[in-house]
Amino acid sequence: MSTPESVTSFTQSRSEIEHSLSIFLQDQRAQLAAIGTELDSVSTSLTEYVLNGGKRLRPLFAYWGFVGAGGIPNSAIIRACASLELIQACALIHDDVMDGSDTRRGFPAIHKKFASLHRDQGLSGDSDAFGISSAILLGDLALVWADKMFHASGVESDALIRSLPVFDEMRVEIMAGQYLDVLEQALASQSVERSLRVAQLKSAKYTVERPLHFGATLAGADQQLLESYSRYGMPLGESFQLRDDLLGVFGNPDETGKPAGDDLREGKRTVLIAATLERANGTQAAFIEQHLGRITLGVNDVMRMREIIIDTGAVAFVEQMIEDGLAKALSALEESQIERNASEHLAELALVAARRSL
Amino acid sequence: MSTPESVTSFTQSRSEIEHSLSIFLQDQRAQLAAIGTELDSVSTSLTEYVLNGGKRLRPLFAYWGFVGAGGIPNSAIIRACASLELIQACALIHDDVMDGSDTRRGFPAIHKKFASLHRDQGLSGDSDAFGISSAILLGDLALVWADKMFHASGVESDALIRSLPVFDEMRVEIMAGQYLDVLEQALASQSVERSLRVAQLKSAKYTVERPLHFGATLAGADQQLLESYSRYGMPLGESFQLRDDLLGVFGNPDETGKPAGDDLREGKRTVLIAATLERANGTQAAFIEQHLGRITLGVNDVMRMREIIIDTGAVAFVEQMIEDGLAKALSALEESQIERNASEHLAELALVAARRSL
Repeated sequence: MSTPESVTSFTQSRSEIEHSLSIFLQDQRAQLAAIGTELDSVSTSLTEYVLNGGKRLRPLFAYWGFVGAGGIPNSAIIRACASLELIQACALIHDDVMDGSDTRRGFPAIHKKFASLHRDQGLSGDSDAFGISSAILLGDLALVWADKMFHASGVESDALIRSLPVFDEMRVEIMAGQYLDVLEQALASQSVERSLRVAQLKSAKYTVERPLHFGATLAGADQQLLESYSRYGMPLGESFQLRDDLLGVFGNPDETGKPAGDDLREGKRTVLIAATLERANGTQAAFIEQHLGRITLGVNDVMRMREIIIDTGAVAFVEQMIEDGLAKALSALEESQIERNASEHLAELALVAARRSL
Repeated sequence: MSTPESVTSFTQSRSEIEHSLSIFLQDQRAQLAAIGTELDSVSTSLTEYVLNGGKRLRPLFAYWGFVGAGGIPNSAIIRACASLELIQACALIHDDVMDGSDTRRGFPAIHKKFASLHRDQGLSGDSDAFGISSAILLGDLALVWADKMFHASGVESDALIRSLPVFDEMRVEIMAGQYLDVLEQALASQSVERSLRVAQLKSAKYTVERPLHFGATLAGADQQLLESYSRYGMPLGESFQLRDDLLGVFGNPDETGKPAGDDLREGKRTVLIAATLERANGTQAAFIEQHLGRITLGVNDVMRMREIIIDTGAVAFVEQMIEDGLAKALSALEESQIERNASEHLAELALVAARRSL
């Protein structure tokens, strides 16, 4: 059990989260092996997937949300917070199937990995279909493991029972947000307002606000503190998603683990794209609409689309929205009753989420 | 709250489960509508899917497992048991995507329904891909709703906390079992023994044994009673799966809600198929191997395959296995300490599961 002094550093809280994930996954591996050795590829793949990178933002927001509410962290709390990363693993694995993304964090997506496994072993039937079926099931399993890791975390019964509704609502919201996102693409939305609503649900609530509430509820926080967390979390979560949109178009593949301009190829209807189309002249708009979502998009097309997105002023507009959201979040922190130590770390975490500067 | 007297009948316990599902789904519909009216199609489809048929076997095993352990049922217990049906909804929705099945209980599968919705509304992008994405997310949502329905059921805290591990293990097992099933198809398994192992995990544990344990644990049952339930549940669960295999090949489409011989078209490697191949002569085996899993399988091919499956003696063999399992289950009931009233209903439920005679 960690003393409060031993977990005051940002890096240390992250490494404790990492460690507890690694231990949990090791235990699950043993349990699956007892069911059947054929499940080794399932546990190995899920373990690699979860441990190969990721900023652990959701567990960190939960952890510092707990500390900010006056909670004294121990290893049970670390486990409860870390379990959020397994919800995220489900979301990403299923997201990659839905988007037809081939890579994640520089590694093959789960459906690609299992398609290769099928092909390499010369198994019967269609390799891609096997990959997709496996990814659906591995995502489901990750979602169940999230429950298991939280339920078996060792947090006190009162805290567990009090936090179950937050844990559940968070997951309803991510699934609803993902559906609205898929629908938004199908509607070929061009509205900044609508795209922002999806971003609020999918990212602001799920990535920032709910994890903070989860941690705070574990610590028994009152309504007033939960509201402070919302005032910090919602604008920050929007900034986080807007940064993600920028990285999806302009990100360095070495850092994003995705090919350059991947969001353009997938045809994602983000706030950035909506802002571009709102500002574009006829020629610019036609070029974007013609090329957005084309799987065969070449480097030159990506470069031209980037140029248009910059020239219309959409990048500057989105960068300004990010800074505004960040400023709102930081000022909400200052005005709150959040514990000082936690407040400093939440400010640090805000910079990571909005600028990806760490 | 129901009095114990009011829930002694099989039909009544089923209708109380039905009612609590309907109330829960109505509440979720309102909650999703508050997030966005575009989610109406999500809640409507999931509600129809869950309420349009299904034998409620898992909730019923849980319910009678609870009563058999001396529990006095009330509406909170009904809700907790009914939540298992939402896990099953997730399993079926995802299963239909993986199998490429177009129908379920005589209605379009969820991915088909959302593909049609996309097509009818003339939305942008590929209709089938939209259908699959929607089905993945609706399945995920059903899995989260199962948690929510159980957590918010109103059962006492001690009972809730005690039962969480059973609830979690049940879901790990179904996902692991589903993966082994997918793998078994890819390995084109011809072994009765291997197919039976998948049936044990996928059906015997998940459909019968774990729901019984779940109900029993809610009632605070001791280890001895849990073991009695295993002795009844495991052979019965195998019989249930074997009946499913027979129905998948010989079932009346009006009753199964699936096209005739659907399992043959999907190429399912069941105990029935393994038993056929073990017994078949060269010509018979060649015919089965050539036609199994062919999407274009015509009525004549299905008829010829059925003939071979019967002629080899595989049907008689599987029917005998079903009866043996049922006999074991019933004799385990007699030797157990299970409450008499519950024991009679569990015997009735065994006939439903093994013979689908109700």
